[in-house]
Amino acid sequence: MNILDIIANKRDAKELSKEEIEYFVKGYTEDKIKDYQAAALIMAIYINGMNDREITDLTLAMAHSGDVLDLSRFGTDVVDKHSTGGVGDKVSIILLPTIASMGVPVAKMSGRGLGFTGGTADKMESIPGYRTNAEIEQFISNVEKVGISMITQTMNLAPADKKIYALRDTISCVENIPLIASSIMSKKIASGANKIVLDVTVGKGAFMKTREDAQKLAEQMVRIGNLAGKEVRCVLTPMDQPLGYAVGNSLEVIEAINFLKGDMPKDLKEVVLELGANMLQLAGKGNNIEENKLKMLENIENGAAYNKFKEMVQNQGGDISYLEDTTKFEKSKYISAVVAEKTGKVKEINAEEIGKLACYLGAGRVNKEDTIESNVGIILNKKVGDEVVENDFLAYVCANDEIKLKEAERRILEIYKIY
Amino acid sequence: MNILDIIANKRDAKELSKEEIEYFVKGYTEDKIKDYQAAALIMAIYINGMNDREITDLTLAMAHSGDVLDLSRFGTDVVDKHSTGGVGDKVSIILLPTIASMGVPVAKMSGRGLGFTGGTADKMESIPGYRTNAEIEQFISNVEKVGISMITQTMNLAPADKKIYALRDTISCVENIPLIASSIMSKKIASGANKIVLDVTVGKGAFMKTREDAQKLAEQMVRIGNLAGKEVRCVLTPMDQPLGYAVGNSLEVIEAINFLKGDMPKDLKEVVLELGANMLQLAGKGNNIEENKLKMLENIENGAAYNKFKEMVQNQGGDISYLEDTTKFEKSKYISAVVAEKTGKVKEINAEEIGKLACYLGAGRVNKEDTIESNVGIILNKKVGDEVVENDFLAYVCANDEIKLKEAERRILEIYKIY
Repeated sequence: MNILDIIANKRDAKELSKEEIEYFVKGYTEDKIKDYQAAALIMAIYINGMNDREITDLTLAMAHSGDVLDLSRFGTDVVDKHSTGGVGDKVSIILLPTIASMGVPVAKMSGRGLGFTGGTADKMESIPGYRTNAEIEQFISNVEKVGISMITQTMNLAPADKKIYALRDTISCVENIPLIASSIMSKKIASGANKIVLDVTVGKGAFMKTREDAQKLAEQMVRIGNLAGKEVRCVLTPMDQPLGYAVGNSLEVIEAINFLKGDMPKDLKEVVLELGANMLQLAGKGNNIEENKLKMLENIENGAAYNKFKEMVQNQGGDISYLEDTTKFEKSKYISAVVAEKTGKVKEINAEEIGKLACYLGAGRVNKEDTIESNVGIILNKKVGDEVVENDFLAYVCANDEIKLKEAERRILEIYKIY
Repeated sequence: MNILDIIANKRDAKELSKEEIEYFVKGYTEDKIKDYQAAALIMAIYINGMNDREITDLTLAMAHSGDVLDLSRFGTDVVDKHSTGGVGDKVSIILLPTIASMGVPVAKMSGRGLGFTGGTADKMESIPGYRTNAEIEQFISNVEKVGISMITQTMNLAPADKKIYALRDTISCVENIPLIASSIMSKKIASGANKIVLDVTVGKGAFMKTREDAQKLAEQMVRIGNLAGKEVRCVLTPMDQPLGYAVGNSLEVIEAINFLKGDMPKDLKEVVLELGANMLQLAGKGNNIEENKLKMLENIENGAAYNKFKEMVQNQGGDISYLEDTTKFEKSKYISAVVAEKTGKVKEINAEEIGKLACYLGAGRVNKEDTIESNVGIILNKKVGDEVVENDFLAYVCANDEIKLKEAERRILEIYKIY
């Protein structure tokens, strides 16, 4: 077998065998296959496509290119959750302690943010003392002790996916459903869960801009899961405007804490309950989705979910006094309200634009090496559908730099479409 | 403009603008665009194709990526000739002195052999003393002095083509008519001629295995030529069995000298006359192809062609006593006749197999750095269509190594298909 024949086969729109796909993934991970050869093959895959068997073989080959987390000690009902990315997405921070409080073991490794979407690990680190860098033994023992642990990816999970993803970014091969699906699923499979609930976001602030594409991606991931022997459920959620009100690391954590204390923005509540109810169903904790939602609400209202969150934070070194009193979180140097220039109804708040603006303020990374500022971002005051009167507060800008503050104020006015 | 958008456009089967193509060729030549990005774009071009305008813009951008030879002092009727490659192809060595003897200025830069096809420059160097490495001023003054010069490529001609060609070889993107056509035409345009006769070989010993593909390549090169303001004529010639009888550097030069002295193998004669007659027509030396052929034969028979060749060889330092007496060429250490094992008719002598066998004996290069042995190769004694009787001589193997000699003898018997 050699890479030239493999490239030629996909170039000619032929089906690649399992052995050919494994040869490529292994050879590329080990730097035996060159970047330019991988680039030619990825482009041929992009244009000529792959069938479900090929996509699944690619997914499994990438999943097994590095460490694979073994969660079997927690039984077969460990459920993982993944979102294809959004703006203001603090769902994991709320949802996971809630289901953990209902007896579902949660061992969650989250990514960091890049571009206009944030990362859960970055957000959690805005709680002083909270450690996201745990060794695997520690991570497992956290879950055994308190039933939940949320850390960042410390293992060498799916290095082939990392390498291929970075390459795709430089050769205009990102927006391709088979490649996106296999990338997501390879990381999930390497993360050790047998059951996975996927939040496929759709809209102006998501990778999938249309419902049709989101549906295709969802179906593709379910088919990969089935062929790989994993139970996969997809939930499509809208991502046109930011989820909830806060965008920015500590701002989102505060919103999540308030949610766990019972203050639940409507759109965020819907997503949390829908995903959670499906996770509970997969975990064998109840077959009726609507009943599952009610049970979750009960555990939020009776404080069990919040207490579980507090337990996890404390167990990983976080200062829980910040949870008890969120005013302790360090404020940004400037906080300024943006006021409406006219009266009307909010028609649109482009989530991607808000995400980019938060990133510009320092909440996110343009390059992997960038450091982030946890206290900057945007807090919406009005959302789509709200009526506003001239001089109403539309949103608050939290910034540490005056020039950026002014620029953000200006852009907020452009982003809010009011008619 | 940026390379990601250019790649995305061709990925989506869009037409690339002249500016986009020039941006890519310039950036890649200057190492600003990475190999993997070029690989992705080339694969997208391979799969999604290019229209004539794009192919011509690619050709011209590559032609102008380095030096461009200025032959304008010789007028507008300078005619170049190029073959897409064959085995036993000594046509240039015969044809060019012949038309030079008829007043057509010849300034010919030839490549070196790689793989199973030989290179004219390598062949000419088997004449002791003959210099193929001339500076441009010397090259031009040779043509001014004796009307003809044949050298190797000393200028930095079409470096973008060299780089793209080498990349294509490593990413399974060689066999593609738009890319082959633009590669050939870019070198021809950089070589300075306004009028070009292309010998498109077709058959088992050629890059184009079928007449249909050869026709497509020919038409593509004519269209590029027209759009680039060059007059281009293509002649399709068969390359199933080797051309003439000799395969190997000095062996082919000897056959060419004998041809110029009047000993003309039928198939070789046909190709020489057909290409030459077309070159004469393009050079304004006669519109009737059949009459042009007769004039060429006349100049061969009256010694004018041979004398012009001798003049050129002498002018470039070659020892013309080897031309007068070809027995002076150093023989290989072993020369052995391969005899027929049965009686019948020769149905096939696969040119590519003979080419590879000559290469194995030392006549060609597997890698660019390899040195060649000028006196090894194969001299056919029987060609396709000849009747043979058991024990007739089929061919002679010229070798400097006894193991290779034996192996070649064995393979000759396999390559000759006699029924």
